[in-house]
Amino acid sequence: MDLSLSLKDKTTLEKMATSLRFLCADMVQEANSGHPGVAMGLADVAVVLSHHVRLNPTNPKWLGRDRLVFSGGHASALVYALLHLWGFNVSLEDLKAFRQLHSLTPGHPEYKHTAGIEVTTGPLGQGFANAVGFAIAGKMAQDMLGNAFSHKVYCLCGDGDLQEGISYESASLAGHLGLADLIVIYDSNAITIEGDTNLAFSENVRLRFEAQGWAVLECKGHDFLDIDQALNQAQVSGKPTLIIAHTTIGKGASELEGSAKTHGAPLGAEVLKRAKEAAKWAHPPFYIPEEIKLHFSLQRGEAEEKLWTQALSQKTKEQIAHLQAKDFSKVAYPVFELGQKCATRASNGAILNAIAQSYLGFVGGSADLAPSNNTRLKERGDFLKGVCGRNLHFGIREHAMGAICNGISNYGLFVPFCATFFVFSDYLAPALRLSALMQNQVYYVFTHDSIGVGEDGATHQPIEHLSHLRAVPHFEVYRPMDAHENVLCWQVALKRGKSAAFVLSRQDLEVASCARLEQVQRGGYVLYKSTKEVQISLLSSGSEVVPCLKAASLLEEENIGVQVVSVPCFDLLLQQEQEYLNTLLVGVVLAVEASRGLEWFKFADEVLGMQSFGKSGKGADLFTYFGFSPENIASRARALL
Amino acid sequence: MDLSLSLKDKTTLEKMATSLRFLCADMVQEANSGHPGVAMGLADVAVVLSHHVRLNPTNPKWLGRDRLVFSGGHASALVYALLHLWGFNVSLEDLKAFRQLHSLTPGHPEYKHTAGIEVTTGPLGQGFANAVGFAIAGKMAQDMLGNAFSHKVYCLCGDGDLQEGISYESASLAGHLGLADLIVIYDSNAITIEGDTNLAFSENVRLRFEAQGWAVLECKGHDFLDIDQALNQAQVSGKPTLIIAHTTIGKGASELEGSAKTHGAPLGAEVLKRAKEAAKWAHPPFYIPEEIKLHFSLQRGEAEEKLWTQALSQKTKEQIAHLQAKDFSKVAYPVFELGQKCATRASNGAILNAIAQSYLGFVGGSADLAPSNNTRLKERGDFLKGVCGRNLHFGIREHAMGAICNGISNYGLFVPFCATFFVFSDYLAPALRLSALMQNQVYYVFTHDSIGVGEDGATHQPIEHLSHLRAVPHFEVYRPMDAHENVLCWQVALKRGKSAAFVLSRQDLEVASCARLEQVQRGGYVLYKSTKEVQISLLSSGSEVVPCLKAASLLEEENIGVQVVSVPCFDLLLQQEQEYLNTLLVGVVLAVEASRGLEWFKFADEVLGMQSFGKSGKGADLFTYFGFSPENIASRARALL
Repeated sequence: MDLSLSLKDKTTLEKMATSLRFLCADMVQEANSGHPGVAMGLADVAVVLSHHVRLNPTNPKWLGRDRLVFSGGHASALVYALLHLWGFNVSLEDLKAFRQLHSLTPGHPEYKHTAGIEVTTGPLGQGFANAVGFAIAGKMAQDMLGNAFSHKVYCLCGDGDLQEGISYESASLAGHLGLADLIVIYDSNAITIEGDTNLAFSENVRLRFEAQGWAVLECKGHDFLDIDQALNQAQVSGKPTLIIAHTTIGKGASELEGSAKTHGAPLGAEVLKRAKEAAKWAHPPFYIPEEIKLHFSLQRGEAEEKLWTQALSQKTKEQIAHLQAKDFSKVAYPVFELGQKCATRASNGAILNAIAQSYLGFVGGSADLAPSNNTRLKERGDFLKGVCGRNLHFGIREHAMGAICNGISNYGLFVPFCATFFVFSDYLAPALRLSALMQNQVYYVFTHDSIGVGEDGATHQPIEHLSHLRAVPHFEVYRPMDAHENVLCWQVALKRGKSAAFVLSRQDLEVASCARLEQVQRGGYVLYKSTKEVQISLLSSGSEVVPCLKAASLLEEENIGVQVVSVPCFDLLLQQEQEYLNTLLVGVVLAVEASRGLEWFKFADEVLGMQSFGKSGKGADLFTYFGFSPENIASRARALL
Repeated sequence: MDLSLSLKDKTTLEKMATSLRFLCADMVQEANSGHPGVAMGLADVAVVLSHHVRLNPTNPKWLGRDRLVFSGGHASALVYALLHLWGFNVSLEDLKAFRQLHSLTPGHPEYKHTAGIEVTTGPLGQGFANAVGFAIAGKMAQDMLGNAFSHKVYCLCGDGDLQEGISYESASLAGHLGLADLIVIYDSNAITIEGDTNLAFSENVRLRFEAQGWAVLECKGHDFLDIDQALNQAQVSGKPTLIIAHTTIGKGASELEGSAKTHGAPLGAEVLKRAKEAAKWAHPPFYIPEEIKLHFSLQRGEAEEKLWTQALSQKTKEQIAHLQAKDFSKVAYPVFELGQKCATRASNGAILNAIAQSYLGFVGGSADLAPSNNTRLKERGDFLKGVCGRNLHFGIREHAMGAICNGISNYGLFVPFCATFFVFSDYLAPALRLSALMQNQVYYVFTHDSIGVGEDGATHQPIEHLSHLRAVPHFEVYRPMDAHENVLCWQVALKRGKSAAFVLSRQDLEVASCARLEQVQRGGYVLYKSTKEVQISLLSSGSEVVPCLKAASLLEEENIGVQVVSVPCFDLLLQQEQEYLNTLLVGVVLAVEASRGLEWFKFADEVLGMQSFGKSGKGADLFTYFGFSPENIASRARALL
């Protein structure tokens, strides 16, 4: 590398670090909000890292690049400053607009919003797990496409990330899988918001990571050569590697150096002035010396990408094209016949396999519930240490699973799915939220979707979960009434290409729908309609639709005209124009769903839902007990008329 | 101890284990559903543990008892069988009704439902953290009430618990705090649902716990004396102790011994028959030899409690009575004046301190955000290793925090609160759900409650969270419009005594309410009403109420009659009779809330809410951008008329 660290004298490196430090401090000062402490503390590490990362600022999406994750997203000033200095499409004006509405430089880094941001971070611990996801995706890419994908995954994280459970979960899996391309730099500054870390955190981090199968290195976080040596050793450790960089928060921030006060607020004009004086930095705010820009520049990336691309074989290029296209138009979906009985978790298993047959980048697994979630991809092998099948075994680590899938999705070559019981979607909610926020493509398979779970009881029966996930913006929740709708839901979801959840039954459901794709695309459609004038519309989803059909029969016996509206995707129904909705919402409207169901009031006059938690007992007994028998549905409908 | 292990011969112990094993297997077989593997695998450990635990079956709430947590709630057959054998109010008939609707023996153990169950478990990892909560509460009790509370906390857990992030978080805190009364027995059977644990889990568990400051012991899990020795050593280790018990899943289950197949399904009549033959167990199902019942009996607990109670001083008894009474009727709440500007996170901080002044069992803290959440209890000291103040430092471990508070609440002598940013309520959702399910008393303080968060941006701005938590049964969410309502909300919540969340602003809010307690008790009330006839009702909560008041002024200028309804607790409003609701819902109804808000359709014709995630920018700019300016509210209201 022509700009390698060893060719530079210490004075240059120090000048780079000082420039970076004050650029960040100036950004926070100008915004009058932000986190200067971590940016200043990590400036020296960032200078050295700049000499290691392989990126192409002119093409942030170069597939052969190293992946760089800033898990502590509050270090965003540092992130944007680096992107600017490296040559990404982040201007000095953007830095000056830090944390302002509509700027390219929001308070925490946002994927798809700013060039060079691999993943949205901020909620602590997520980035760590995302990095594990990148490393898993990298392994898969190497396996399918060769050594061109033997790039590194760098992750910078802090105490907050390492205290969060998700970091332990994902570190445990990374160690188990031996993800040697993963290098995590731990900014160990012994400070958190409440003060010294030893208020709450005294574990032996080295031992902890060694226990999980990692190599652990330490370095002085303000000593360029020491940092460089650690990064060089990490390249060849043969294991995922943690570099503990001992740093001082707010390094160079005059009397605030080392203080928790630098964490979440500007230094203030006075402190900043004194800090610059001490560093002999007699420049106006946002000043970057020209030669420093040259030293930071990653211009070399353009040539690196060119060479990389030239070395790819035609076959590899074709494989890449297949993976990138994410073309699901040729999937040979299974066919389910009217009257057939099939749990939607079972039909979903067949669908997942059909998709995986057609698109080789479809990968995933379960948090140790594959036999129950029906997520096994047959003849696709396991992803284990040294074995690169497509079936991931996430272990009993739902939270890491979701965040790892975010990493796999953002990697660009794969479409991941993950699975657990619906009630345990709670465990991965923060990761799912980020799927929605990033608008990436992760499929969440949630089986055991209601009181239909039966004997396992209240702890295992989702109640509030549909309301929760339907309230997440940019996220779609599919709850098909039967195996046939399940197929159509997947067709819709894959076409839309957004992250989505499939909420599926444990118990057998009779195939009673012969919907067309256009109907399911609307979110809801008239499944059945009496010949006589409709006085009541029953809206429902999933396992409650067939009881509604039976209730309709009972009502018809009393000469009441009914229609049954199946709503496999409430979120899509919300997007329909009023004219279409008017065809669904005829007469009085009763929504029937074995969930809390308050959101149904958007469409319905009354909701037959769950007012309490579930119970332990046979699923069929519970459906009756909680009022989802055809008789009770009919009775509630009758009362409304 | 007159029934100590050493006095019994091995044959007796084996007979006890065999009885227990087949009792559990029979229960699962009779229910035709359940988890025999873990129960049979742990039978030998359970026999030894029966000789260590100090419990009084005739008074399951004896304060001096050991606490026993079965973190793997799927071991419920074992739990109920033990409770029966020990002499708790669980009959043989109850065992035969295992997992049936309305039985005392649901699929997973439920707090308050079955005598002797300390905490509801099933969602993995929770019980582990609950046990840490019990141990923290035990330390506090010792500090306040003396050595009478130097009981042990036992926790049985499995691979599933230890793979979940929450177990690492809570173990890290337990080690940090040096909770020496905590003894966790890890049922290490090397099997999970997908098969061998080494599919996904290969960390060095001993090293991991040592890294977190624990003592680690190992024992052969089917060798009575070895188990006993480990339990004896654990008593005196001076640290929280993990006993790794190497067991075989489904021990004694004939050819299924050691197989994942014994995990989640009955053994089947044939296998069970062969298993009993091999064990020379020629008895009908559910048979328990009389002498075995005597050996298991914990009858001694009654005498133990008597002695324990006699030794309490009068002063200690009075202190216990104070803590148990949980009397909040004498709290000297702060007073806030109309027009005063105060963030509700700030008023809440003052309220927490007022409560802590009046009730000495009020304890809590934040997940490293105390200065932001305003949760510091002044002059109450820190809870650290060897120091028993009332301010807990949970570290950046939201999930463990919630579950630890469940343990502290269930302990019986304290009322805990915990805190984080509202958006990170996602991180602790599984624990919060269990607070609701158990109907215990944990207060969740969630500050930074909307786009009002400002510059930190979309990752830090809650959108779906109100909808989520309002959909949780038996849980109440308070979102006061100002400091005055904040006080009343606490009065209501403490009177109701249920777990609840307080959703509070980061930004200053003007005190504009002079509500009375009876009004807030209703969940919602008319805050302002035009003198002219009301054509439109504006329903709102929190920081959006004052903009609604301003919108009302704008509308009145156009001669439109308006009323503004403040809804500090949506959940309570749901419980009001129609007559009262009719006084609130006059004319067309527009709900205004900076959240997803679909549940408002229960009351409103239209909702002005959030359709997307938030953005980074100044809070005031965001309120305008997303439509929560008085002008836009008035305009939306006008459009409805």
